[in-house]
Amino acid sequence: MQSADSFRIGIVGLGLIGGSVALAARRSGWASRVIAWDQNADVLARGRTLGVIDEAVADIPTLMAQVDVVVLATPTRAGEQLLPDILAHSGGVRCVTDVASVKGSLRDVAATLPHEQRARFVPGHPIAGSERHGVDAARADLFAAHRVILTPADDTEPEALALAHALWEATEAEVVYMSVEDHDAILAATSHLPHVLAYALVDTLSHAPERERIFRFAAGGFRDFTRIASSDPVMWRDIALTNREALLEAIDSFGRHLATLREAVAAGDGAALEQTFRDAKASRDQFVQEFEARTGKRPLSSDVG
Amino acid sequence: MQSADSFRIGIVGLGLIGGSVALAARRSGWASRVIAWDQNADVLARGRTLGVIDEAVADIPTLMAQVDVVVLATPTRAGEQLLPDILAHSGGVRCVTDVASVKGSLRDVAATLPHEQRARFVPGHPIAGSERHGVDAARADLFAAHRVILTPADDTEPEALALAHALWEATEAEVVYMSVEDHDAILAATSHLPHVLAYALVDTLSHAPERERIFRFAAGGFRDFTRIASSDPVMWRDIALTNREALLEAIDSFGRHLATLREAVAAGDGAALEQTFRDAKASRDQFVQEFEARTGKRPLSSDVG
Repeated sequence: MQSADSFRIGIVGLGLIGGSVALAARRSGWASRVIAWDQNADVLARGRTLGVIDEAVADIPTLMAQVDVVVLATPTRAGEQLLPDILAHSGGVRCVTDVASVKGSLRDVAATLPHEQRARFVPGHPIAGSERHGVDAARADLFAAHRVILTPADDTEPEALALAHALWEATEAEVVYMSVEDHDAILAATSHLPHVLAYALVDTLSHAPERERIFRFAAGGFRDFTRIASSDPVMWRDIALTNREALLEAIDSFGRHLATLREAVAAGDGAALEQTFRDAKASRDQFVQEFEARTGKRPLSSDVG
Repeated sequence: MQSADSFRIGIVGLGLIGGSVALAARRSGWASRVIAWDQNADVLARGRTLGVIDEAVADIPTLMAQVDVVVLATPTRAGEQLLPDILAHSGGVRCVTDVASVKGSLRDVAATLPHEQRARFVPGHPIAGSERHGVDAARADLFAAHRVILTPADDTEPEALALAHALWEATEAEVVYMSVEDHDAILAATSHLPHVLAYALVDTLSHAPERERIFRFAAGGFRDFTRIASSDPVMWRDIALTNREALLEAIDSFGRHLATLREAVAAGDGAALEQTFRDAKASRDQFVQEFEARTGKRPLSSDVG
């Protein structure tokens, strides 16, 4: 399907997210053509084989000359390095948006650029993903019923903002707005902290003297709890580095609550433990009910261990 | 199906685990009849309505007079209180086994009882469960392809041990043996620590000033990570109290590894973060591969956030 309102999309960094944006935007008819650049030529070839993209280009200026909207979908630190080059060549482009999990660092990079360039940049973050990564994992429905947070600046061009909004709606995501600071603090709590805890748990058990038997006797609860520890190490390294302040605050807050629970265990304070567990269960049950009602996601398998 | 090798089973505490043992043992033909006692008469009535049990009795002595094998399936601390009464009436019973997630506390209770009583007791722990609980959640296949750890004492009667082993094999579980100390240390690492971390994370976020938006913007990764925080608060209070020493050691070991990761974040040490994340991912990926190959469990949905 191609219409008067369809656009040529450029993807910079063809992984799970960039590939899924391409598939979703083309399935909806919003994108008439998808052109991609990636530092890895094999990935681009794979994207063409899979039909995720129409065309691959060898450099960013070539990409910028042929598209209306650009989606920067590399890991965060690579994005910081690429953004100035992308915006420098964005004269013929109507919107540059990104998908990074941390918004402060790209905002800071954009702030150093000329107004007419940075005004085309709409920072964004789809709250969706997978522990699988790479273009082979891309899916047209990855963002459906998920939220995308846009964190525009005061001087972002209205047309650029409208295009970023429309792109994400075309993927069937729900678009919401937030300040950079709120985004980075909230994501530190809901996503970045849990990832660090999951990595820390697996790290702890991997170094235990009993490590072999520990992994042999772990079960479904452990599998689910640590699923996010199978995420891309480079992406999460970058997130930890670029959202450092908010993440440190989240880790420290968690550390205080864990210390309180530890004291209750040490003191044999069953009443305090039961109350904390009961409150946490109530909060988590309510969250899941709302999440599953909104997204239509099925409950997970229920094996604990 | 009823055979010469089928037994009358008594269930003490009719919840997810007791109910699932009943269903599995009867489905296989190992149990010819299932009789249950629970402190809650409504639960017993529900168990009869659901067809999980054949008969409910009003007290433990009545139960003990009518069965060959008894499965103690209450939360851990209730089990400690009931075990002496069960064993005191076990003269006509060939095996008393249990399902508690901590083995040290019941071992200590048994050690105070006369030899001829405690020799009939085979401590056991099926590494299977669910965040759902209660007899309504019981399933005949809960233990299939899962492990059950038995931790017999030196003077456990061979016949009692053989019956406990056979009961669990009838549920299609794989039976393995371990010392009480090893069991409690390994389960502290693989199960009790993750539960405490999940409860602590939800507790942390529930008390954050931004709690409403935090839960609104949490996604699939958070849901999976916190699934075990929806587990039964009383059961987990008891586990935390009865496996205190091993759990404190596991919490402290985790705390040291988390502190190391925190330092790497604070110092902006990307190389250290990436290495830790990479190693953790490798360990976790290997665990999942083996777990899924063994149990035939399907991979989970893969939405992260």
